Amino acid sequence: MRSNDTEFATLRWVGDVDGYLDLLDQTLLPTEAKYVACRDTATLFEAIRSLRVRGAPAIGVAAAYGVCLGVQGAVDLNEADFFARLDETCRYLATSRPTAVNLFWALDRMRQSAELQRGLVPHELLQSMLLDEARRIHEEDAAMCRAIGAHGAALLNDGDGVLTHCNAGALATSEYGTALALLYAAQEQGKHLRVFVDETRPLLQGARLTAWELQRRGFDVTLICDNMAAQVMREGRVQAVVVGADRIAANGDTANKIGTYGVAVLAAAHDVPFYVAAPSSTFDLTLVDGCGIPIEERDPREVTHGFGRQTAPVGVKVYNPAFDVTPARLIRGIVCERGVISPVTGENIRRRIS
Amino acid sequence: MRSNDTEFATLRWVGDVDGYLDLLDQTLLPTEAKYVACRDTATLFEAIRSLRVRGAPAIGVAAAYGVCLGVQGAVDLNEADFFARLDETCRYLATSRPTAVNLFWALDRMRQSAELQRGLVPHELLQSMLLDEARRIHEEDAAMCRAIGAHGAALLNDGDGVLTHCNAGALATSEYGTALALLYAAQEQGKHLRVFVDETRPLLQGARLTAWELQRRGFDVTLICDNMAAQVMREGRVQAVVVGADRIAANGDTANKIGTYGVAVLAAAHDVPFYVAAPSSTFDLTLVDGCGIPIEERDPREVTHGFGRQTAPVGVKVYNPAFDVTPARLIRGIVCERGVISPVTGENIRRRIS
Repeated sequence: MRSNDTEFATLRWVGDVDGYLDLLDQTLLPTEAKYVACRDTATLFEAIRSLRVRGAPAIGVAAAYGVCLGVQGAVDLNEADFFARLDETCRYLATSRPTAVNLFWALDRMRQSAELQRGLVPHELLQSMLLDEARRIHEEDAAMCRAIGAHGAALLNDGDGVLTHCNAGALATSEYGTALALLYAAQEQGKHLRVFVDETRPLLQGARLTAWELQRRGFDVTLICDNMAAQVMREGRVQAVVVGADRIAANGDTANKIGTYGVAVLAAAHDVPFYVAAPSSTFDLTLVDGCGIPIEERDPREVTHGFGRQTAPVGVKVYNPAFDVTPARLIRGIVCERGVISPVTGENIRRRIS
Repeated sequence: MRSNDTEFATLRWVGDVDGYLDLLDQTLLPTEAKYVACRDTATLFEAIRSLRVRGAPAIGVAAAYGVCLGVQGAVDLNEADFFARLDETCRYLATSRPTAVNLFWALDRMRQSAELQRGLVPHELLQSMLLDEARRIHEEDAAMCRAIGAHGAALLNDGDGVLTHCNAGALATSEYGTALALLYAAQEQGKHLRVFVDETRPLLQGARLTAWELQRRGFDVTLICDNMAAQVMREGRVQAVVVGADRIAANGDTANKIGTYGVAVLAAAHDVPFYVAAPSSTFDLTLVDGCGIPIEERDPREVTHGFGRQTAPVGVKVYNPAFDVTPARLIRGIVCERGVISPVTGENIRRRIS
């Protein structure tokens, strides 16, 4: 591997206000690392919808830059029309992934940052102010990941075997990741880790994305099928499990990619500490516990036609929950950008988050 | 589904001594149910090697019929040449799957049955005696499966959800299966079961074979990815787990398809009884416990190139153990053709098996 191959950007804005957004096309990984240049909102919309960019933080950053694409050329309009174009862009991009909270959050923040200046500055200036705001969202995401890594790296020891599930890495954020931030930070401290990556059926984010980014950054990576995690733990090859999170309830119950809960049960049975890493924005303190988190079911074809060919009989029933909920009692610690919450109790969470 | 679609034979001898062996080509499942006619040993050899027929008992029965194919036409030879042909056939077929114990056992039994009659009956008669012996091996396998089903059906209650892993069904035996025999027998008793089938990475025997045969026989089947088993148990959908076995040690430790051990840990964590079903020939009383069972590692490409497309980065390390060992303490009962061994202790095993 050439050393300049080790660095990659999940997304990058190229140029100034008249620039464009370059996205690493994750649908081509792990066999090709190609960028798709988004020069208009329609291209970006398609890229988000078809998962060329995925992972809540990365989608939020991409959408923020998408607003900049939407107002390109709009400075020639009058102020009312400029804001109409801005609204239209936000409404359009919001429909690209209808359940992505970070997407709505980033679009709202972009719109509000412009609204706050409405009438105070010439609207011609808003275009560059919006690009500044998008860049801030991007930088804040990167800083959040770095802080998670800095807090969590101490949980991993030199020589440890670490198991991870799905992709909560650089590819899911603007860079560095959440769960994988711990690994990157530990590596920067000179610790050598052996990383076991669950392939993560049905969509194989572990095999396609996590294995790719860790290999790219020089880690000792071993890919396993999800059903091999128990055996790997039994053989004493794993000293810690680190995963990301989609949503965390007030008591610490954590929703994450399907299969996470099973890994947590196996880790407990083998006395392996199980850590969750996620930004504080992942906490939803309105939820008392994990029971309030609905389990989304996805297309059966992800299971029956996952590998480019049909692997199950026609008409077979499929249960395909997109995620599961790991109870707080199975989680040794939750790492967020504000520090490590451990033990995972409602009180410790309230103290750190609210 | 047409009702005559529900019955299928894994293998069947067609005709008399000059007949042939029809094998359901399992490499085409679940999308096509086609038979391959083996009219010579070379065709059968290729069918065993390329997994058109698989499952230890089914391979044993197929090999026994293969001996009959090998001696077709050999009655015109003198006795010495007839036996030379017989030996050559057995040696040839034994190399089709070098680690399949039932294969060697069936070939030995066929050869010995002929040797016992050497000089006592005209060798011209041996051809039909060999076909009789192959049919006996076939019938004994079917009877063994029926007995396992009869003993084990009582462990399953009407309305139960049952989870199974890999394929220990009709397709792995001459008919009826071992683990799935419990389900077929319970169904014949009028019990309605909801069956959850782990797809069983990397080779997807659950998705391709178990889901197919259970669907064909009218079961309420739900296919899941291996990493969904924990969630399905947590939701209370599973009242029993039933799996097969490759080898069982004197203390009850059980080697079976990779992923079985993880399912057993999850079952224990959810208070779901975990059963193993296997013929008594699966016990290896020379092994004190499961530590003596070597873990075979298989080709990384099964994980990285599973189904016609590359799903992991080039050069990534893979750990691909073919099976794992479930400790006896996690097994509620072992069902064999002689009855149910429960609790699973060395003493109970010795009493039933030796």
